[in-house]
Amino acid sequence: MDNITINQTDKINNNSKKRIEKDKLGKVSIDKDMLYGIQTARAFENFNISSSKVKKELIYAMVTVKKAAAMANEKVKTLDKERANAIVEACNAILSGKYDENFITNALQGGAGTSTNMNVNEVIANLALKISGKDPGDYDYIHPLDHVNMGQSTNDVYPTALRIACINLVRALSDECSKLQEALQRKENEFEFVVKLGRTEMMDALPITLGQEFGAFAQAIARDRWRIYKVEERLRQVNLGGTAIGTGSNANRLYTFRVIEIIRDLTGIGLAKSEYPIDLTQNNDVFVEVSGLLKSLAVNIMKISTDLRIMNSKPFNEIHLADMQAGSTIMPGKVNPVIPEMVTQVAIKVMANDSAISMCAANGNFELNAFMPLIADSILESLTLLTETLKIFRTKCINTLTANEESCKRHLDNSIVLLATALVPYIGYDMASEIILESGENPEKVRKIVLEKGLIDKDTLDKILNYHHTITYL
Amino acid sequence: MDNITINQTDKINNNSKKRIEKDKLGKVSIDKDMLYGIQTARAFENFNISSSKVKKELIYAMVTVKKAAAMANEKVKTLDKERANAIVEACNAILSGKYDENFITNALQGGAGTSTNMNVNEVIANLALKISGKDPGDYDYIHPLDHVNMGQSTNDVYPTALRIACINLVRALSDECSKLQEALQRKENEFEFVVKLGRTEMMDALPITLGQEFGAFAQAIARDRWRIYKVEERLRQVNLGGTAIGTGSNANRLYTFRVIEIIRDLTGIGLAKSEYPIDLTQNNDVFVEVSGLLKSLAVNIMKISTDLRIMNSKPFNEIHLADMQAGSTIMPGKVNPVIPEMVTQVAIKVMANDSAISMCAANGNFELNAFMPLIADSILESLTLLTETLKIFRTKCINTLTANEESCKRHLDNSIVLLATALVPYIGYDMASEIILESGENPEKVRKIVLEKGLIDKDTLDKILNYHHTITYL
Amino acid sequence: MDNITINQTDKINNNSKKRIEKDKLGKVSIDKDMLYGIQTARAFENFNISSSKVKKELIYAMVTVKKAAAMANEKVKTLDKERANAIVEACNAILSGKYDENFITNALQGGAGTSTNMNVNEVIANLALKISGKDPGDYDYIHPLDHVNMGQSTNDVYPTALRIACINLVRALSDECSKLQEALQRKENEFEFVVKLGRTEMMDALPITLGQEFGAFAQAIARDRWRIYKVEERLRQVNLGGTAIGTGSNANRLYTFRVIEIIRDLTGIGLAKSEYPIDLTQNNDVFVEVSGLLKSLAVNIMKISTDLRIMNSKPFNEIHLADMQAGSTIMPGKVNPVIPEMVTQVAIKVMANDSAISMCAANGNFELNAFMPLIADSILESLTLLTETLKIFRTKCINTLTANEESCKRHLDNSIVLLATALVPYIGYDMASEIILESGENPEKVRKIVLEKGLIDKDTLDKILNYHHTITYL
Amino acid sequence: MDNITINQTDKINNNSKKRIEKDKLGKVSIDKDMLYGIQTARAFENFNISSSKVKKELIYAMVTVKKAAAMANEKVKTLDKERANAIVEACNAILSGKYDENFITNALQGGAGTSTNMNVNEVIANLALKISGKDPGDYDYIHPLDHVNMGQSTNDVYPTALRIACINLVRALSDECSKLQEALQRKENEFEFVVKLGRTEMMDALPITLGQEFGAFAQAIARDRWRIYKVEERLRQVNLGGTAIGTGSNANRLYTFRVIEIIRDLTGIGLAKSEYPIDLTQNNDVFVEVSGLLKSLAVNIMKISTDLRIMNSKPFNEIHLADMQAGSTIMPGKVNPVIPEMVTQVAIKVMANDSAISMCAANGNFELNAFMPLIADSILESLTLLTETLKIFRTKCINTLTANEESCKRHLDNSIVLLATALVPYIGYDMASEIILESGENPEKVRKIVLEKGLIDKDTLDKILNYHHTITYL
Repeated sequence: MDNITINQTDKINNNSKKRIEKDKLGKVSIDKDMLYGIQTARAFENFNISSSKVKKELIYAMVTVKKAAAMANEKVKTLDKERANAIVEACNAILSGKYDENFITNALQGGAGTSTNMNVNEVIANLALKISGKDPGDYDYIHPLDHVNMGQSTNDVYPTALRIACINLVRALSDECSKLQEALQRKENEFEFVVKLGRTEMMDALPITLGQEFGAFAQAIARDRWRIYKVEERLRQVNLGGTAIGTGSNANRLYTFRVIEIIRDLTGIGLAKSEYPIDLTQNNDVFVEVSGLLKSLAVNIMKISTDLRIMNSKPFNEIHLADMQAGSTIMPGKVNPVIPEMVTQVAIKVMANDSAISMCAANGNFELNAFMPLIADSILESLTLLTETLKIFRTKCINTLTANEESCKRHLDNSIVLLATALVPYIGYDMASEIILESGENPEKVRKIVLEKGLIDKDTLDKILNYHHTITYL
Repeated sequence: MDNITINQTDKINNNSKKRIEKDKLGKVSIDKDMLYGIQTARAFENFNISSSKVKKELIYAMVTVKKAAAMANEKVKTLDKERANAIVEACNAILSGKYDENFITNALQGGAGTSTNMNVNEVIANLALKISGKDPGDYDYIHPLDHVNMGQSTNDVYPTALRIACINLVRALSDECSKLQEALQRKENEFEFVVKLGRTEMMDALPITLGQEFGAFAQAIARDRWRIYKVEERLRQVNLGGTAIGTGSNANRLYTFRVIEIIRDLTGIGLAKSEYPIDLTQNNDVFVEVSGLLKSLAVNIMKISTDLRIMNSKPFNEIHLADMQAGSTIMPGKVNPVIPEMVTQVAIKVMANDSAISMCAANGNFELNAFMPLIADSILESLTLLTETLKIFRTKCINTLTANEESCKRHLDNSIVLLATALVPYIGYDMASEIILESGENPEKVRKIVLEKGLIDKDTLDKILNYHHTITYL
Repeated sequence: MDNITINQTDKINNNSKKRIEKDKLGKVSIDKDMLYGIQTARAFENFNISSSKVKKELIYAMVTVKKAAAMANEKVKTLDKERANAIVEACNAILSGKYDENFITNALQGGAGTSTNMNVNEVIANLALKISGKDPGDYDYIHPLDHVNMGQSTNDVYPTALRIACINLVRALSDECSKLQEALQRKENEFEFVVKLGRTEMMDALPITLGQEFGAFAQAIARDRWRIYKVEERLRQVNLGGTAIGTGSNANRLYTFRVIEIIRDLTGIGLAKSEYPIDLTQNNDVFVEVSGLLKSLAVNIMKISTDLRIMNSKPFNEIHLADMQAGSTIMPGKVNPVIPEMVTQVAIKVMANDSAISMCAANGNFELNAFMPLIADSILESLTLLTETLKIFRTKCINTLTANEESCKRHLDNSIVLLATALVPYIGYDMASEIILESGENPEKVRKIVLEKGLIDKDTLDKILNYHHTITYL
Repeated sequence: MDNITINQTDKINNNSKKRIEKDKLGKVSIDKDMLYGIQTARAFENFNISSSKVKKELIYAMVTVKKAAAMANEKVKTLDKERANAIVEACNAILSGKYDENFITNALQGGAGTSTNMNVNEVIANLALKISGKDPGDYDYIHPLDHVNMGQSTNDVYPTALRIACINLVRALSDECSKLQEALQRKENEFEFVVKLGRTEMMDALPITLGQEFGAFAQAIARDRWRIYKVEERLRQVNLGGTAIGTGSNANRLYTFRVIEIIRDLTGIGLAKSEYPIDLTQNNDVFVEVSGLLKSLAVNIMKISTDLRIMNSKPFNEIHLADMQAGSTIMPGKVNPVIPEMVTQVAIKVMANDSAISMCAANGNFELNAFMPLIADSILESLTLLTETLKIFRTKCINTLTANEESCKRHLDNSIVLLATALVPYIGYDMASEIILESGENPEKVRKIVLEKGLIDKDTLDKILNYHHTITYL
C-alpha cells in the first residue's frame, strides 16, 4: 500500500503526485489518483492485518444510503441542489463499479464500522468535488461529514446498509434454494422406479426408491427456501435516522421520514423505520437469527453431500457423479466427488461463521456493538458462499448425476436382513432366523431352502422378493 | 448400578431377588423391583459413560405417544381392549412420576434412540403386566414390541416425542420471555426520567435515559418471544406412522390416522402428519433452526447481563443489583452480581449446545440420523436452562434492581465529550475545542470560561446543559 | 428440594426437624439432617436452574485442599490441634463418599465458585462440629470461614482444586489412551495380511492392509496419549496462597509454603506454587489449552468411528463389529454400530464443551474470571466422558471386531481403477485406458483381453494382480 | 475471469491470444499470458464460489517442495539435469513473487488440494518451458505430472507444504508473542507504583498495582509464546515420499531420503520423515492441536483487550489509550478504543476458525481427509491474522497507553468495601460494618467517625489507608 504516507512531511513536499490532508493527529499524504481521504488512510494503517477488505455488497449498500440521504436532504432543503446532485452523481458512478479500488479499509476493523463509513464519505465527497470541477480534498465545498454524512451517523447508516446488503443476498440465495429444490425434485421423478435399500445407521433396513431419497433432500431444501424467504421480514426494520445512539439526535425529523421513503424506492425493498431505533442500534440478534437459518441450510447440504459421496463410492455404486476434473495422475479413471467435497467445506465454513457472529453479538456493550464489522463480514460471506455454492452444486453435481440401477438392485437382492424381514409375515420370525442360519447368510441359498421345504410356493416367493411392491407410500 | 447382572448364570440361580431375561446374545438377570428388561439392561452397560440420563421431558413424551398408540390400536382392533387398557393405565402411572428410576439409559447413547424406546416399551409392558395381575417378564401376554411398540418404530416414535417435548418446553419458555419482557418494560417506565450517559464502544456519547436502555432490552426480548412463539409451527409436523424409514412399512394405515388424532387430544398440540415422513425421519434441520433461535435469546441475555454487571460496578454505579448472597468473607459489604454471571454462563452453554446440535444434524446418513440422542439432550437442556434462568433473572435481578440517579447525573455532568458536543451548535466546533483545551478538560471550568467570555448567557447555558431536554424521542 | 425454607419464620418455629441459620439478608431454616449451611442454601435458591450439580471430582479436590490447609494451619500454629484434627477427620469422611448428598450447588453458578467453596466449608465445619461433639450450626467453635477457610479465598482454592481434579482425570485418560493404542496395535498385527483397497476421498485408490489402517489409528491415538500425558505439567502450577486476587493478602506466608508441601503429599501430584499467582487467579488459558488437546483426541476417535461404521456397512463389509444389542424388532438380524455412534456423539460433545470453555475464558474481567464454574463443569465432563468412552470403545468395539477378508479381497479384485493402475507400468497409460474401455469396465474381461492380446503373459499378470506384493512399506 | 474459455472451440480458433489444452473431458482455451493449464482452468470453474484464493504462504511452500523434488530427482538420476535446472529456476522465479496472479484456485476447493497441486505443477512446467526456450503447453518436454510432480502425489506434497507454511508462520508469531510480552513487561515496570483497585467479578476487591495487572497480562502471553514455540516440533514430521496413501507407492526410495535432506536445507526447518506416513496422510489432529493453542492466545488477547477497554472508559479512567483516529464527527474529543476492538474481533475469528478446523479434521474418511483445503485456509489465516494483530496491538496500543494515576487513586480512596476491609483487623468486622452503615457508605465520613470515636489514631489510620503498603508480593 504505497498510496499513503503518514506524517512524513519531507517526503510530502517533494512529491507532486500526492495531496496532503490533516486532522488533529497530524498530516497524511495521499496518492493524487486516490479518492479516499485522511480518515480512510488512518484506518488503513490501524487495521492493516490482512488483505481482506470490507465486502463490496456492504460498500454499495452504504453508497445507496448516502445517495438517499443526499436526495432527502435536498428535499427538506438542508442541502442545496448543486451539492446534492454532485453527491448523487458520485454515488451512481461508484455503484457502476468503477471506483472499487478506493475502498481499502480492512474487514476486521475496530470502531464499529466508522472507518467504512468514513471511507465511503470521503470517496463520495472527492468524486463529487471532481464532478463539480473542484479538486479532491477541497472539502470546503463538499465535506465528507457536513454534506455527505449530513443527518447521519455510522451507527445508523452501517446497520441499515448491512440489512440492505443482507436482503439483496437473501433474495439471491432464496432463488438458488428454489432452483436446487426443483433440480432435486426432477431427480425425484427421474429415479421414481429405482428401488434400492434404505439404510438406517448405515445398515441395511427396508426398500426405498432413489427417487424418494432425492425427494427427502428436496423437502429439506424446501424448508430452507421458506425460512430464507421469510427472514427478509426480520431484516426490513432499520434504525436510519437514529444517528449515534438511536435517539435521533442531530437528525432533522423531516429528513428522517423522507430518507426512508427514498431508500425504499432506490432499493425496491419494503424497509420500515424501527419504532425503537435505540434497540436496533445496539442489538444484533437479528443477524444471529439469520445466520442460524443459514446454518440450517448448511446442515442440509452437508448431509446431502455426504450421502452422495457414500452412494458414489465403489462399494455402494448406487449413483454416478459426473466427472468434473481428473482425480489422479497415477491412477487412470480415478475421479473424485469434488463438488460435494466443496459443498461440505462451505457448510462447515458457514457453521464457523455462525459461531463468530454469535460471539460478536453476545459481546456488545451499551448503545452500540463494537464488533459489527466481523458480524457483517461473516454473514455476507456466508450468504454469498451459499448462493454460489448452491448454483454449482445444482449445475455440476445434482443435474448431472445418474443412477446405477443394477447396483441398487444387487444390494437389495443380497441383503440378508431385508430377505429375512420379508419372509417373517409368511413363515414367522423364528423359522426365518433358522433358515438364514442354515443358509450361511447366503440369500440365494435361503430362496432355495424355502422352496425345497415347500414353505412358500415359487410365485408367492417371487412376489415377496420383488421389493418394489413392498415400498409403502404413506 | 447393581441392579443388572449380565451373563453370570451362577449368581442368577442363587439370587431370588432377580428375574432373568434372555435374547440372542445371552441372559441377563434384573432386579425384581425394576420394571425395565433385557434391552434396557444391555443399553445401560453399552453406554455407561456418565450419570447423565435421558431427560424426563423426552421419556414422558414417548410414554404419551405409546399411550396414544395403544388407544389407536384398540380403536382399529389390532389390539384387544384388555391389553390396551393395561398399557394405557401403565402409561398414566408413569406420567404421574412414580416410576422415574426405571429410565436408566444414558443420554449419549448409540442406536439413534432405540434404547430409549426399548426402555419405555419394557417399563410400560412390565407395569401393564403387573396391572393385569401378571409377573414382570411374562411377555407372552403383553410384549414390549408386539403390543407396546405395535405399529411403531423408534424412528418415528422418537422424533415425534422429541417434537412434543420441545413444544411443551417452547411454550414454557415463550411464557418466560413474555414475563421478562414485561419486567423490563416496568423498569423502562420506572426509569423514564433517569437521564444518563449513553455510551458507544464503551465511551461517552450522548444522553439517554436508563428507561430507554431497559426499553431496548425489552425490545430484544420481545423479538425472542415472537421467534420462540412462532417456531412451534415448525415443530408440529411429525413422522408418526412412518416407522423405520418413513415409508410406513408395518404400520396399519387406519392406525396411522387415528394415532395422530388421539395424540393431538392428549397433548393439546396441533400436531400434523408430515406429507413426506421419509424426510422428517432423516432430516434434523428443524432442531438446528430452533436451537439457532434459542441462541438469539442467549445472545440477548448475555448482552443485557454484561451491561448490568458494568453499570453495577463501582466506577459506573448507575444501577444497584440487589444483594442475593454474601460475596466475600474477608471483605465486608462485597456483593457480587451473581445472577447476571449465571445468566452469561447459561447463554454460553446454549451457544455450545447449538454447535453440538448442528454438528450432529450435519453428520446424518441416509434414512436416519444416528446422533439424534445428542440433539435431543442438547436442545432439551437449552430449553429448560433458558426457561428456569429467565425466571430467576426476572425475579432475583431485574425486578429488584434500582437506579442510582445521582451517579447517573454525575457522569453526565462530568462528561467533557458531551459538554463539547452540546456547545457546538452555539459556539462552533472550533471554539468548543479551544475552550475545552483551555479548561484542562475540566467541565466546571468550561462552564466558567463560557460565561466569562460572554459566549452564552447563563440561562441559555443552564438550558443547554440540562441534558434531559436534549434526548430526542424519534 | 424440600430441605430449605428461606425466610419463613412461622414454619421454622413449628418445625423441630429444622435448624435456623442467619446472615445479613435474613434467616433460613435447614433440614437437621443436612450439613450445609445458609450460604449453601442461598446459592441453591439463586442458581436452581437444573439438576446438574457441581461435579464430585471438583468437590473432592476442594475437600483435599481444605484438609491440607487445616494441616498447614496447625503446623504454623494459626489453628489449634483439636479443631485441625476435627476438620481433617471431617474431610476424610467426606472423601470416603458418605456425604455426597450435601453438595447441592448448581454447576452453572454465578460467583466464580464462591458457592461451591462455601458449600464445602459449611459441610466440613458442621461435620467437624459433630465429630467434636457439638451441634451443626454451632459455628463459634468451628466456623466455615474463620477455621475451615482460614488463609484461603475461593479465588485461590477453586482454581487449585480444579487443577488437581483435572490432573487426576488426565492421568486416567492418559491410561485409557495407552490401552486403546495397544488394542489398536493388536489389531494392526492381527490384520497384517488382510490386503484391502485404500481409499482417498471415498474412492478406490491403492492397496493397503487392514492392519496398516489400524496402525494409522494407533499412531493418532499415540499422539493423543503423549499430548495428554505432557499437559499435566501445565496444570501443576497453582495459585494457592494468592487468596482473593493473587497478592496473597490475608494469608500467612509460612502457611503458604507449608500448604503446598502438604497438598503435594496428599495428592501425589508435583504441584508448585506459581511465581505470579495474580496471573493464575485471573487467566484461564491453560484450560483452553487442555480442552484443545482433548478436542484433538475427540477428532481422532470421531474419524476412527466413522471409518468403522462405513467399513461395517454391508456394501463395504470389510469388518464386522460385534453385536452389542438388538437393532430392530421388525428386522431379524439388524444390528447397529451403536458403540461407534456413541463415540461420535461424545466427540461432538467434547468439541462443544471446548467452545464453551473458550468463550468463558475469553470473557474474564480484571482479577478474576466469573465464569470459571462453566469452565470447570465442561472440562471435567469432557475428561470423564472421554475416559469412560475410550474404555467402552476398546472393550466393546475394537477388541471384538473382526475382518471380512473375503470381502476385502473382492473389492480389490473388482476395482477397475486399481487394475488399470497396476497395468500402466507394463502396457502404458493409453493402452490400459483403451482396454478398460473395451472391457466395459469389467475387471474379469480386462484380464481376458490382456492375455488374448498377448500383452502380458499369465504368470506375470498373476503376479501383478496379486496386490499384496504391491504394498510398499516405507 | 475472462482468461478461460471452456469447450467453446469456435471462439478458440478465432482467438490468437489463446492457447488450447485438452484432457479426457474436452478442450479448454487459456489466455496466452497465463502459465497455468487445463487442470487449473477446470478447477477454477468448479470451485468459483468466491474471490478467496489459496493463500500465498501455502503456494510458496508447495513450490519449495517441488524445487526440492526436482533437485532430488536429479541427484538420483530420475530426472535429467536440463529439465531439473529449468524446474528449479522456475521455482525460484515464482518464489520471487512475480507470478502470483497465476495461482487462481479457490481456497475452498474439493479434491483435497489436488487442484492447488496441479496449479503449481502447471505454472512451474510452463515457466520451465519458457526458460528452456519452449512454448507453454509443450508438455512433451516438461510435463506438469511426469516431471514436475515426479515421485509425488498431492497427498504427500500438500500436507508437507502445509506444515512448512505453518512452521514459517509459527516462528513469526512466536517472535511477535515475545515482543508483546516484552512490551507488557515494560508497562509492568512503568506502572510499578500505580496503586489501584483490584476487582473480582467487576466489583471492588483489594489493592493491586497497574504494573501487576500488566505483569499478569505478560505472564499469559509468555505461556502463549512458549506453547507456540514448542508446537513447531509437532509439525516437523512430514509424510513426503508417502505419495497417494502413505505407502510410498510410485516413489523411488533413494529419492525419498534425498528430498527430505534437500528440503531441510532449503527451508532451514528440521523436518523429519514420518515413520508412519499412512498416518500423517489421513490424520489432521496436529492442526487441531496447533489451532487449539492459537485459540489460547486468542482468549488471552481478548481478555486483555476487554480489560483495556473498560479501564479506558470514562467512569474507570484508569488508563488512557492513545488516539489512533477520530471517533465521531458530531462529538468533539470522542475517540474510541479501536485497536482493542480489532483485537477482539481477530480473537473471535480465530475461535471460529478453530471450530472449522476441528469439524474438518473430524470428518475425514479412510486414507485421506478431503477437507484439508479448509483446514489449510483457516489455520494459515489464524496464524497471519494473529501475527499482524499482535504487532499492531503492541505498537499502536500497548506501547502508547498511559496511566491515570489520579483516577486510580480516587477509586481506591472512594472504595467503601476496601476501606471496611482495611479497618477489620483494627476494629473488628462488626464495628467496621456498623460505622460504614452510620456513614451512609461515605468513605470521608467513615474516616471522620473513626477518628472522632478515637478507635484508631490519625497516624495509624493514615498508614492503614495508604493502600500501597497493603499490597502483598508473594
